[in-house]
Amino acid sequence: MTGPGLFDEILARGATREAVSDPAWLAALLEVEAALALASADAGVLDDAVAGTIAAACAPDRVDAAALAVDAAASGNPVVPLVAGLRAALRSDGADDAAAAVHRGATSQDVLDTAAMLVARRAVGAVAADLAAAAGSAAALAAAHRDTPAAGRTLLQQAAPVTVGLRAAGWAAGLDGAVAALRRWRPAVQLGGAVGTLAAFAGHGVAVRAALARRLDLDEPTLAWHTERGRVAELAGVLGRAGAAVGSVATDLVLLAQTEVGEVREDVPGRGGSSTLPHKRNPVGAVSARAASVAAPGLVASVLTAASGHEYERAAGPWHAEWAPLRELIRTTGSGAAWLADSLANLVVEPGAVRAALDVTNGLLLAENVTTALRGRVPDPKTLVTDAASAALDRGRPFAEVLAEALEGTDVTRAEIDAALDPAAHTGESAALVDAFLAARSATEDTP
Amino acid sequence: MTGPGLFDEILARGATREAVSDPAWLAALLEVEAALALASADAGVLDDAVAGTIAAACAPDRVDAAALAVDAAASGNPVVPLVAGLRAALRSDGADDAAAAVHRGATSQDVLDTAAMLVARRAVGAVAADLAAAAGSAAALAAAHRDTPAAGRTLLQQAAPVTVGLRAAGWAAGLDGAVAALRRWRPAVQLGGAVGTLAAFAGHGVAVRAALARRLDLDEPTLAWHTERGRVAELAGVLGRAGAAVGSVATDLVLLAQTEVGEVREDVPGRGGSSTLPHKRNPVGAVSARAASVAAPGLVASVLTAASGHEYERAAGPWHAEWAPLRELIRTTGSGAAWLADSLANLVVEPGAVRAALDVTNGLLLAENVTTALRGRVPDPKTLVTDAASAALDRGRPFAEVLAEALEGTDVTRAEIDAALDPAAHTGESAALVDAFLAARSATEDTP
Amino acid sequence: MTGPGLFDEILARGATREAVSDPAWLAALLEVEAALALASADAGVLDDAVAGTIAAACAPDRVDAAALAVDAAASGNPVVPLVAGLRAALRSDGADDAAAAVHRGATSQDVLDTAAMLVARRAVGAVAADLAAAAGSAAALAAAHRDTPAAGRTLLQQAAPVTVGLRAAGWAAGLDGAVAALRRWRPAVQLGGAVGTLAAFAGHGVAVRAALARRLDLDEPTLAWHTERGRVAELAGVLGRAGAAVGSVATDLVLLAQTEVGEVREDVPGRGGSSTLPHKRNPVGAVSARAASVAAPGLVASVLTAASGHEYERAAGPWHAEWAPLRELIRTTGSGAAWLADSLANLVVEPGAVRAALDVTNGLLLAENVTTALRGRVPDPKTLVTDAASAALDRGRPFAEVLAEALEGTDVTRAEIDAALDPAAHTGESAALVDAFLAARSATEDTP
Amino acid sequence: MTGPGLFDEILARGATREAVSDPAWLAALLEVEAALALASADAGVLDDAVAGTIAAACAPDRVDAAALAVDAAASGNPVVPLVAGLRAALRSDGADDAAAAVHRGATSQDVLDTAAMLVARRAVGAVAADLAAAAGSAAALAAAHRDTPAAGRTLLQQAAPVTVGLRAAGWAAGLDGAVAALRRWRPAVQLGGAVGTLAAFAGHGVAVRAALARRLDLDEPTLAWHTERGRVAELAGVLGRAGAAVGSVATDLVLLAQTEVGEVREDVPGRGGSSTLPHKRNPVGAVSARAASVAAPGLVASVLTAASGHEYERAAGPWHAEWAPLRELIRTTGSGAAWLADSLANLVVEPGAVRAALDVTNGLLLAENVTTALRGRVPDPKTLVTDAASAALDRGRPFAEVLAEALEGTDVTRAEIDAALDPAAHTGESAALVDAFLAARSATEDTP
Repeated sequence: MTGPGLFDEILARGATREAVSDPAWLAALLEVEAALALASADAGVLDDAVAGTIAAACAPDRVDAAALAVDAAASGNPVVPLVAGLRAALRSDGADDAAAAVHRGATSQDVLDTAAMLVARRAVGAVAADLAAAAGSAAALAAAHRDTPAAGRTLLQQAAPVTVGLRAAGWAAGLDGAVAALRRWRPAVQLGGAVGTLAAFAGHGVAVRAALARRLDLDEPTLAWHTERGRVAELAGVLGRAGAAVGSVATDLVLLAQTEVGEVREDVPGRGGSSTLPHKRNPVGAVSARAASVAAPGLVASVLTAASGHEYERAAGPWHAEWAPLRELIRTTGSGAAWLADSLANLVVEPGAVRAALDVTNGLLLAENVTTALRGRVPDPKTLVTDAASAALDRGRPFAEVLAEALEGTDVTRAEIDAALDPAAHTGESAALVDAFLAARSATEDTP
Repeated sequence: MTGPGLFDEILARGATREAVSDPAWLAALLEVEAALALASADAGVLDDAVAGTIAAACAPDRVDAAALAVDAAASGNPVVPLVAGLRAALRSDGADDAAAAVHRGATSQDVLDTAAMLVARRAVGAVAADLAAAAGSAAALAAAHRDTPAAGRTLLQQAAPVTVGLRAAGWAAGLDGAVAALRRWRPAVQLGGAVGTLAAFAGHGVAVRAALARRLDLDEPTLAWHTERGRVAELAGVLGRAGAAVGSVATDLVLLAQTEVGEVREDVPGRGGSSTLPHKRNPVGAVSARAASVAAPGLVASVLTAASGHEYERAAGPWHAEWAPLRELIRTTGSGAAWLADSLANLVVEPGAVRAALDVTNGLLLAENVTTALRGRVPDPKTLVTDAASAALDRGRPFAEVLAEALEGTDVTRAEIDAALDPAAHTGESAALVDAFLAARSATEDTP
Repeated sequence: MTGPGLFDEILARGATREAVSDPAWLAALLEVEAALALASADAGVLDDAVAGTIAAACAPDRVDAAALAVDAAASGNPVVPLVAGLRAALRSDGADDAAAAVHRGATSQDVLDTAAMLVARRAVGAVAADLAAAAGSAAALAAAHRDTPAAGRTLLQQAAPVTVGLRAAGWAAGLDGAVAALRRWRPAVQLGGAVGTLAAFAGHGVAVRAALARRLDLDEPTLAWHTERGRVAELAGVLGRAGAAVGSVATDLVLLAQTEVGEVREDVPGRGGSSTLPHKRNPVGAVSARAASVAAPGLVASVLTAASGHEYERAAGPWHAEWAPLRELIRTTGSGAAWLADSLANLVVEPGAVRAALDVTNGLLLAENVTTALRGRVPDPKTLVTDAASAALDRGRPFAEVLAEALEGTDVTRAEIDAALDPAAHTGESAALVDAFLAARSATEDTP
Repeated sequence: MTGPGLFDEILARGATREAVSDPAWLAALLEVEAALALASADAGVLDDAVAGTIAAACAPDRVDAAALAVDAAASGNPVVPLVAGLRAALRSDGADDAAAAVHRGATSQDVLDTAAMLVARRAVGAVAADLAAAAGSAAALAAAHRDTPAAGRTLLQQAAPVTVGLRAAGWAAGLDGAVAALRRWRPAVQLGGAVGTLAAFAGHGVAVRAALARRLDLDEPTLAWHTERGRVAELAGVLGRAGAAVGSVATDLVLLAQTEVGEVREDVPGRGGSSTLPHKRNPVGAVSARAASVAAPGLVASVLTAASGHEYERAAGPWHAEWAPLRELIRTTGSGAAWLADSLANLVVEPGAVRAALDVTNGLLLAENVTTALRGRVPDPKTLVTDAASAALDRGRPFAEVLAEALEGTDVTRAEIDAALDPAAHTGESAALVDAFLAARSATEDTP
């Protein structure tokens, strides 16, 4: 196992990186060749012992990965030299029958596509695990801050109060949705032979395919999907959704961590500080998560473009074109998920800053509630409130004072005004929404 | 209703165009405002009669669409002037109570997002209908040509026989998968008020939301999703998958229609001909379907990029950024689906050309089968076949003749050779695969 | 001329919308047919009078645009029915010779591509004009606020002082670069006939092409570029760059306009206010500019994908695939440019907020400068400053006070400390950079 | 130097892979730190000897790349641990002054961006070299086959004759254009310090920047471009154009190599063959080139999306988001260029197949020329030709015979008919166009 690349700990964070690495790919390719031999035996088209010999030979340490990579260029895919290597190894072991039977009936794409499914399943599992961890942290924040009023913001302008918990519940909801979508994706076995007819299995192809699916615990499709890339396109789509979920939450975090806002910070000793700028508390996790999400949509487009160009029984380019963008898409989505999980796990909410933000507008944040409160109490509450707000804004005066003056001569008391301007009293159904969300979430988690 | 734009009949074909048109959007916005009033009455926060007055006023013919479009710029969304217009209309009707109650509790994004869901549901339905029609035509071709041998091609090189039906089944499979994915997508109501807390519903927001969802037959989410765009991202993903399915089939069709291949043609009188090039039979439907699919992946990326940037309680840009690419994505996917349905409905398979293609290689197409057939009959069948194939290629001789010479002195007869080279006898499990696919397809269709 | 679409004033702002509209396209198509006839006369292959008759007939009011749009579907492009319509019109005028000579020698793609170049030239000019206006406003801000210290921010954390002018100069630089790139792009005439050989011009094709280029003031390429889409790809690239320039500046503006920052606001009466949230000052222009830029990269990808798929002498899909994304890309880029120009023209810098931001960190913003100032004055200035900063942060004390205590017993005076912490004194070479930028800018503008 | 990754020889072919590798990046980072020290000495703000000591320490073999990669996560970029490592190394050498002066005045982004420019310059050079080689091969084909008639095809239907040389000239034109665009791109030095003010250079920042640009032979910008990513966006654009140029030519090649067309093949011993399918001649080079180009547009979108999001003085995500897609974009474009150069260098044109294709339509390919030839000889040549073509098509008869019958009784002779149907006589101005193209090309190449 080699160490991380120069940018890997930033751009390819977490368990996903290993899951889509070259060693993982090579192991998956060998796993498929082994399973194919055993499945052929299951279906009665290969001797059990010969199958066993092949399966035993399918070990990473028997493959010269570097040579294989070089030789892959001659045919345009790594399976051809892999099979050649397996055959040579078996022949040198004296197992000529096994050598002849390696890969029998299959085409390179059968093996590569099935291996890709194995790689993707594990990698998607890693992505989903990190997303689920992030969602769990967000849900915990939602519970902890269910009733903490905070400034809600639209178009980056303060608009009306929310609770910290409601916003965090929204994060959890987006991440939960992404996890569910990833988990709905179903990898499938690929087996069709040269052109999808299973011709080289002498009538037993469907049986071998079923056995292969069973052994690898993959869905068995009705037809080969050499050029029908619906499940690849779907994978790209759900990864794209996951990347978007990460990006949106991470954007909130970097904004909330702004020096002028300061409602949250990542508390990871030794990270995000600056020796020359000591006040800086760079939210490295959220920044990196956001960065990871930026790359994802273009990669989704690349995978979809490839998927839409497959022709006939094997594509002259679009198949190869799928490999790098799909790997990179998984890797960057996984990196974003890992960073976001890290950021949320270490997130500190700063109550002082949350409260201070509510006072920035001198009370105007609650203007809408005042209008509601005055309905039926004064003739035209909206105009009154609008005028008072303008006056408060223009003269930099507390809204409560201006309102009190404007309401002189009515039966509206200052206490009523103050109540109308209390953020904690005007978070609407935030608490109930958080409760409902957390309850629904628990119910889903309890379901196997 | 205005006529089609200059390129619309080519690039925005089919029912989808109208489904995402300005009139459709305007109708949906009004439908939401009406339903909101009625739902508020359902929840007991608005008088029934007032709600009815509002609902009655929500009619497209009462809205000055052109003025609304101009006025939308001031606030950055069309709901603000729409609501202003409704209020003015109601006031001019003397219905001041109704005027005051229009849109009560909601924010512009509630209405626009919910309307977008209505628009998308109908448009996605239109896309799915056209895809399903295309899939039906492909399935019919699969049944009709279940046993017609044809040249299978990999990397655009002839590889081994398939059947026309198996290839068509593959088309149907891809389109069926896209339809199923589109139909799994679930639109949801949006209702949160200014910042998602439902504060302006005085404690009845969740009840109004439930009623609104019921009236519009939309899912009811646990939380507002003003900045949690998972369902929008998912829609982009399934549309991307649909576009890819279309593109892949259309690519097959334009290739099969090549002058030098000629296995299919679109038979639409008055279309695709050329007065100056009389032999041309341009597959206009397939070409246009393919064109439509090329635009889709970039639009998916745009929607996902927008989705990943939403911040806080309403996004400062990403929300607006979603409208045009999503509409365009639906439109181009629908256009591709409509063109492909047209192309496949009018597709003529040319048996002569299909057969002729099988003879282009002088028999070499079946080389792999000969190797299989000779296993156990001659010492090293693979080398013998390879050498014979090279000789046939180099000297331009029929493969059967060269093989016969090479097998002189063995007990392999010429009849056996000819049998090994008969494409119809070497389509593997094609027929069974087609049958299984069609049976599974029927079963699915029968399920409600 | 129809009014704007429902979202057009938000998403397709400015002069660019008309420049890529259907009427603009139709006018350009007619302009090319007219110029082709006249160029043929110039080259001596068509009678001057006949050419004049054709040119006179190429008038938008003689074309039934709606019928043309419908008929375009049969051939897959609008030029075929346009030519048929022109011929019919001329025949009905009794000008049979002219009818026969319309479009002679050309193929549909010649006319459509050349018209696209005309459309693009005008539209790109409109985009560039709006970008240049935005750049001019930014440059004016740079000059006006050359010396106004402001908090510089990295990773959204305050880092060290800049000047408002230096930041604005950066905006102008990005916009200037985009304008220059757009203006470097060179549209070219397309003329090749059916397959690029100019065969139907009887040996005079190159001469006609030269005349056509001259008449339309377009570059004359050496070869037809029916499937060599380099100049289209380049156009997409420079538009993508323009979109990015807009997006980056607009992002700064929406951030600076945040309620908690408030360093800028758009001052456009009647825009961006909220009747229910009176304190809101939504920067509608910057928000819309940002939204416009989000869509651009995906559209660039679509155009490039189309460009990379052209085959042989005319593409079976990729050519058609170019039309919608390129138009949409121009439109959204133009919209972004128009909104940004509007935003910057109406931008108000709030000196109080700019100054207040500099005090948010209680002096820590200048920590790096203190280290520099103490070099040579105390043994380990970096550790001293870091420790003092930590203390100030932890205890919420003014940095100057903590420093003063830490420096007791040294010869560093409180006045020196205060000087080291004065933002205005630590904006580095900001003023000189702004001056150099503005001087270089003037020099460029003076050059014709 | 490690060996290629599992897919690298297919997907990351050629010299570009090394040029953007981790070792290349590390070397570039060190080169910048060294040059910064020397430039500081040039500008008189650092002692020459100290600068020399620093420069000498900037050697890859003194850096623990694996540790650096791990440590990069704490700050989010690899420059921070690189600088820490250099300082530690210098201190351990006893060079404390040098240790203190390493990186002085600069910020991490200065070093990383400038290193990125060095990496990009070399990599773009490698891409351009491969593209130029491919263009050279295409131009040679154009010269060699200037007069070889071939079937021109539009919408994948045979349309009219071209010459092999004219098509190849079109390939060269597209590749030349891409090379020129790549070579117009100008990398620039980045130096601004923490927030772009050069504050830590004590008034000598501009001088250091000028010296740094001179030493690294990079353009010197007027302002820091930490968040003004125009030149990065432009690089993405020109790479996108290059990818499109590659994709379009490679698409032609895979189509021309189809079994049923066979006009070209790649002649590379040991590549593209299939042991089980001996007649297959997979154009591995063209297939791989095409695959490489499919990934590019999405990556361009990712880079542009990143570019449009940079805010303030350093971006919280978009900067990091640029690294992986830009590297991958360069790599895949380079791979496509390398494969295409390989394919074209080994391309064999098959004259027999080229000629055979011209006969596929039984003469109808020349129908348009017959119409031209008959103009003035018969009353309505177009109708006559169209009718004859239909008859020939419907009855599968040679067009010449049908025409001869239709022209009985006119003075048009059979020899004239045959001449009108001779492809070689109807390639229009192909030869002149090729000559003009090659002449213009030579002139450009001769210009330094």
